[in-house]
This record gives sequence, C-alpha cells and structure tokens, in this order.
Amino acid sequence: MHHLFTLTELSSAEITELLDEAERFAKGDHWQATEPLFVANLFFEPSTRTKCSFEMAERKLGLHVIPFDADMSSMQKGETLYDTVRTLEAIGVNAVVVRHSQDAYFETLRHVIRIPIINAGDGCGHHPTQSLLDLLTIRQEFGTLEGLTVAIIGDIRHSRVARSNAEVLARFGARVLFSSPEEWKDAANPYGTYVDIDTAVAEADVVMLLRIQHERHEEKMGLTKEQYHARYGLTLERGEKMKKNSIILHPAPVNRGVEIASELVESKRSRIFKQMENGVYVRMAVLKRAIEGGIANGSYFKKWKIV
Amino acid sequence: MHHLFTLTELSSAEITELLDEAERFAKGDHWQATEPLFVANLFFEPSTRTKCSFEMAERKLGLHVIPFDADMSSMQKGETLYDTVRTLEAIGVNAVVVRHSQDAYFETLRHVIRIPIINAGDGCGHHPTQSLLDLLTIRQEFGTLEGLTVAIIGDIRHSRVARSNAEVLARFGARVLFSSPEEWKDAANPYGTYVDIDTAVAEADVVMLLRIQHERHEEKMGLTKEQYHARYGLTLERGEKMKKNSIILHPAPVNRGVEIASELVESKRSRIFKQMENGVYVRMAVLKRAIEGGIANGSYFKKWKIV
Amino acid sequence: MHHLFTLTELSSAEITELLDEAERFAKGDHWQATEPLFVANLFFEPSTRTKCSFEMAERKLGLHVIPFDADMSSMQKGETLYDTVRTLEAIGVNAVVVRHSQDAYFETLRHVIRIPIINAGDGCGHHPTQSLLDLLTIRQEFGTLEGLTVAIIGDIRHSRVARSNAEVLARFGARVLFSSPEEWKDAANPYGTYVDIDTAVAEADVVMLLRIQHERHEEKMGLTKEQYHARYGLTLERGEKMKKNSIILHPAPVNRGVEIASELVESKRSRIFKQMENGVYVRMAVLKRAIEGGIANGSYFKKWKIV
Repeated sequence: MHHLFTLTELSSAEITELLDEAERFAKGDHWQATEPLFVANLFFEPSTRTKCSFEMAERKLGLHVIPFDADMSSMQKGETLYDTVRTLEAIGVNAVVVRHSQDAYFETLRHVIRIPIINAGDGCGHHPTQSLLDLLTIRQEFGTLEGLTVAIIGDIRHSRVARSNAEVLARFGARVLFSSPEEWKDAANPYGTYVDIDTAVAEADVVMLLRIQHERHEEKMGLTKEQYHARYGLTLERGEKMKKNSIILHPAPVNRGVEIASELVESKRSRIFKQMENGVYVRMAVLKRAIEGGIANGSYFKKWKIV
Repeated sequence: MHHLFTLTELSSAEITELLDEAERFAKGDHWQATEPLFVANLFFEPSTRTKCSFEMAERKLGLHVIPFDADMSSMQKGETLYDTVRTLEAIGVNAVVVRHSQDAYFETLRHVIRIPIINAGDGCGHHPTQSLLDLLTIRQEFGTLEGLTVAIIGDIRHSRVARSNAEVLARFGARVLFSSPEEWKDAANPYGTYVDIDTAVAEADVVMLLRIQHERHEEKMGLTKEQYHARYGLTLERGEKMKKNSIILHPAPVNRGVEIASELVESKRSRIFKQMENGVYVRMAVLKRAIEGGIANGSYFKKWKIV
Repeated sequence: MHHLFTLTELSSAEITELLDEAERFAKGDHWQATEPLFVANLFFEPSTRTKCSFEMAERKLGLHVIPFDADMSSMQKGETLYDTVRTLEAIGVNAVVVRHSQDAYFETLRHVIRIPIINAGDGCGHHPTQSLLDLLTIRQEFGTLEGLTVAIIGDIRHSRVARSNAEVLARFGARVLFSSPEEWKDAANPYGTYVDIDTAVAEADVVMLLRIQHERHEEKMGLTKEQYHARYGLTLERGEKMKKNSIILHPAPVNRGVEIASELVESKRSRIFKQMENGVYVRMAVLKRAIEGGIANGSYFKKWKIV
C-alpha cells in the first residue's frame, strides 16, 4: 500500500524515483491506468493550487474523480473522517487525497484504511507534494540538491512547507538557512540554521519564501504590512543582492507586498509559477505510485468482508 | 417515464426486477447508454454515501454529470425547485437526482417535468434507494425476504428509512418489529409491531438501526449519549444476544456509541459497509431504468415547444 | 487570443459568425477539440442557467472541466482574481469562464493572462453570452433582427442584460424601447427610447423582461410585489395586448408574479426555456472560438518562462 503522509517516511531512493517520474511527465510521458479507477479529493481547508493540480493530474492519468464537498458531506452530521474515508472505500473509490486542518489527521487512518491516502496538507504538519514540487523545481534549475544553500524565510513555526522541506533538503545535502521573526522560530525543526534575512538572501541559491498564514494566527507582531515587508520581506532592494543564478520560490498564495515585493513575483528569478506547473507532474507521479502499489495488493476486492 | 419517488408506488415485480438488476451489477455486469446522456445531482441536504454513490453509479454507466451546487445556484436568488429542474431539462439534462428537506417535494414536479426524477430522500418522507440497498443486502444474506424478522430500532417517527422500508418489507412477507422511545413512535406507520429493544434484538434476523438525526430535532429526551445507548442502543451486551445468523444494518452515518456500540460497526455481523457497496449497484439499476424509460418516450426533444 | 468580455468589442461580422455557429450546433453539428483541453468555470456569484449550460457546452465539446469552488479556493486567504487565473494558467488550464460581482473585473486580466477568458457576467456590466442567446432566439423566430421592435422592460440601470443587448440590437437594426420605473432608468445607455409599459408591450415584436435583482439593491420603491406587478409587470391583461406574432423573453431566474404573470412563463408566446436551450449552443460557439484562437497563438507552452 503506497500511502503518502510525509516525505520523512520515504527513503531517499523513493523520493528520487518520484522526482524522476515527475520529470518524465514534465517531458511529456503518458501513463494511464489499465482499468477504470476512481479517486476523491477531500479538502477541508481552502485551496486553489493543490486542489486544482490534483484534479488536473487525475484527469491526465485518466482517473474518474468523485466530487466531495466537505460542507455538504455527512461530516456536517457529525461523521468522523475515518468513517467518511471508509465509506468512500466501501463504495469503490480507489484512492483519496486529503487536506485537513488537524496535524497528523492520517494517524487514525494509517493502519485501517485499505486504499491509498495521499496527504495534501495536514494542519501545521506536512505537505509532501509541495516539497516534491519544490525539490523538482530546484533540481531542474541546478541539476542537483547537493551543495546548494536554500534559505527558508518567514513563518517557520506554523509552516508545513518549512517542516516538510527542511528535513528532506538536509537529507539530500543542501544547506538550509532559516530566517524568521523571533516569534515564528521553530525549536522543533533542527534542520536549519537561523540567520538574519539579509544574510539569507545574500547566501542562498534558492530563496524560499513562506506565506504569512493570516487564517492560522492573529498575531502579526504589531507590524503593518509595510513594516513587516521592510523588516522580513524580500524587498526590491534585497532582491538585487541575490546571487547571480539564484531563484525565488514561494508555495503561494502570495501576499504581494508583504513577504515579497509584488514586482518580484513574476520577475526573471521567480520560479513561482513554474512550481505550480511542476505540482501537476509530481502529483501525477504520486498518484501513479499509489495506484500501482494499491492495486497490487488486491485490497479493493471483498473489502466489505469484515471478519 | 420512470421517475422513482417512493417504493410504495412500485409493484412488487418492479422492485424485484430492480433488485435482480442490481445483483447483476454486483456480479460485474456492464451496461452503458448508447448515446451521451447528462445527469445532475441536486442535493439540498448534506450527504456523503448517497451523493457519492450516485456519482459513482453515474460514471459506471458512462453518464456525464453536470455539477450542481445548491448554495451557488439561482435558488439563492429565490428560484423555485420547479423552475430549477425545468431549467436543467431545458439545457439538455436527461435525468435529475434530488434530495430535499421538504417532504414530498416531488409532488410539484411529478406531472410537469419531462425528464426522470429520482428521489434521493425527501425530508422525513421516503428514501427509496436506501430501501432497495437494504433489501438487496438482506436478500444476499438470506436468499429471500419472506419469513424473516426485521427489527427497525430508533427514531421511527422522523426516519424516511423506516417509512420506506417497513411497507415494502411487510409486502415481501417479512415480519417487522419496531423498537423506539415512546416519543419517537410513529402512529402513521402501520407495518410493524412495537416491542422493547431486548425482544427486538433477540428475535430479529436483521437488526436495522436508525440514526438519531440531531439535525432534525433538538430533543434527546433529556438523556446523555451514554444513557440513550444503554436504554435504546445496540450495546455489546445486546449484540451477544442476537440470533446465530442475524446481521446488523444501519443507513449511516453512524453515531458510534449512541445507537450502536462502536465495536459492532465493523464486527462480523455488521453489513453496514456492504450496504454502502450495494448502494452503488441499486443506484445503477435505478438510473438504468430511468434512462430506458425516459428515452423511450422521446420527451427530450422539442421540450421547449410550450403550447 | 479570443477572449470574450463584451459584445461591444466584437464586430458585427464576428457576432454573426458566432450566431451562425450556434445555429449549426442547434441543428446537431458536432465539433471536438483534437487534443485534451482543460477549462475551469470561476463563478463568484450564484448561477444555475449560465453555470450549468457552460458545463454542458464544455462536455459536448469534449473538454475536461477542472472544478473550482470560490468558497473553498485560496481567494479565501486573500489571493486576487489575477493570481488565481494565473495559477490556473500555470497548471495547464486552457481557458476560463468567469462570473464576478465587480464591474469590468476583466480589465486586470485582459493584457496579461495568456489563456482565453470568457465573461459570464461582470457585476452590473456585461453578459455577452446572454446577449448572444437572446439574439439567436430572436433570429430563429423572425429570421433577422433588422426592423424589429424590442422592448426591454424593468430594471434597466442595474441590468447587465440590458446593457449588453441594447447596443448590439441597435447595431443590427432593431428599434429598442425601454420601459422602467423612473429610479431604474439608465442615462448611460443611449440605445433605447423610454416609453410606458403599455406602449412597449403593444409595439414590441419581442418583449424582453428583466429580473428584479433583489440581491443587488434593497429598494423596491416602496411597492409590494403585487403593486410592482400591476404597474410595471407583464400582467395577463398586458399579455393579451401583445402583437400577433410577438414573443416573450426573460433571462431568468424569473420572479413569477412580479415582472411577469406566472401563467405567461410557459405560455405559447414564451421563449424563456428555448432561450436556455440556446444558451448551450451559443456557449459551445464561444468556447470553440476561444479554443481555436487560443491554440493558434501557442501561448500555452513555456508559459512559466517569465523574462
């Protein structure tokens, strides 16, 4: 069974194979399942990029998508996530993609659900397909992750992107710098070294900005957007101090003029929209892996025989 | 025209044919329409099982599904259900599936809409495809309905499942027992005999539990969940007093620990998830019948010629 | 690039070609794209007819539809419409259909988005596909627009239907009459002559009623529905004074008994449901034009190369 909960659970070889597969899709490879397969996308938090690129990836693989609207589901009547996923399994859904506000929501599903589950973001936990698309974008640019300096800048503590990326970047030989307001440092994430933003920007091959998640916390440390931008954001001035071939990443949605100057979002250095395109390819790779692993174990058949 | 509003309107032969058809689908039969057909699912109340299994059934039959979101439809501007369905008919939708909170909502549509309408639940009225999947699950287990004792337990009065099932079970020769708190007995449903829950559980071949519909009434008769469970629920103790080959059904979503002990939901006797799987097959049968009946009368053409 | 923002921007020849194309679809012509194409419908205001008929048109053309739910999109996190459309472009969506409450929302997209955008209604601005379906319905009835008298009746000032239709009707040689309560006259729309409703109804070949948009303004000029109907609505009495071959149009949803007597909605003169059917054909024509124009310029490829 090929769930995908966190990248930490994958070996480096497995991650590399996913990136290679995604690269093949980026270059135009086709792959479709040999029988009709059904997938459902369970998004309990807002999303444009992740949701739409999973939808795109699913259609490119020839999968049937069963619509699921959390606000109109039986979870409104108190049904649990576990019973919801078991239900979808029972009616013949072959894989589910889940985004949920609860950290590690998947622990209640891991050993009991018999169809692959793909984590599309769990609270402040992990966001493995985002990490994969970041890795792919960096690898396309530099050919390798080894020896690169990647600066992750912003709200480190609440970011599932920071958490997912730092471990795997370090594992693949990149040097990780963190830059963050004091309040948003994350003592539980040991994979980076904190530096001030000017140092981070000046030394990085990859400047990876994080979104201020207004929906997760009220605090903005008493700063206006302009003040935050000046102190902790990638301003136009800081942008000019970036290294010659360095690039800008951001998981988006972007708060233009807050964590990054609006003009830099679509600048020559930015790979922000390329990240989105790559998101489709890594999700195709992850879905293909899930389907191939899931069908092999024959779990779909006689699934109602509870003994 | 083959609408499906209530099972009461169908002859026993028609019901048997639907169950036989569903059984064929369960065994792997394929059927697809010979021309492109479009269906819309109009759900005005939350649903996971019914909505998703209709979506699954439609795709298995090769139908195109036109998404409809009640909260973003023109019913927000005051458009009636009748005008909404007439609109869908006008733009070429070939059949609609409707769940609505109003009892017998379909009476305003019955003689005027020229495409088949399938009732996916009307208020506290009927839920014919739920009944069909219950019947199918019982028949798969016992080969027949005749001579069986079926205990329907819980909120009889507000349950469209109880209403839909009792009449048809009695018609097919089953003995129906009801067990319910005094407040939730239903004087208008003459098809069962009220007994206490211990008798019901001990005598039944099929223990059919109903969900407490928290969304339809506030009253819980001053009981905590634990008290309700002890007095009126299928506890582990009661579960052990069930007859040797008897089974447990529940339309779900299940309030675990209220109408049924959580451990029993996925126990050896439970057919709760098998019911969900069967839901896909009966909905395929109902849709096939609707399409075959609907196309035969040629109602789709010149539908705008109102004279 | 073949966007469609307003009919005013199209030449008369282009409009005629769209109507001719729609008529061919009405008569059963088929056309499908030769490669897999993806479209997203971004509706930020409620809609049944326009949304569902775009969905229908897209499927008839063999397009893949990527679902987009504004309430569950990243616009909930503050993302702009521009960044949302850019995102969809980046992940490979080939065209977008947009309805938005802001007048001329498309001006922020016009010169920067590299996939075709089809306006499905902008605030009190324009609604070009509604105009096209009105024109098609009139042309089917009378063979031409030239020389006809078209009365547009109701809330002229807030109506994107009135704005879109009046200019193009005048351009094609129709005489446009407006009839409206004083408060809802539109000094900015020079294409019609104001007359009282009885004159409008008596002289018109086409009586085009507008919906009172309760959601856009509270004012109903202190009138009850019955009073409004008597003074400004198409009552049964006024309906009898219509010219021999004249027809009734309404963009719907209809407030039955307010702008039109309920009995007239499905009367012999009404083409209201035929308009809806025609809506599918004109949207097929508009989508076909967008796809053909969009693919020709090769904008989909290397779209992330921002230099």
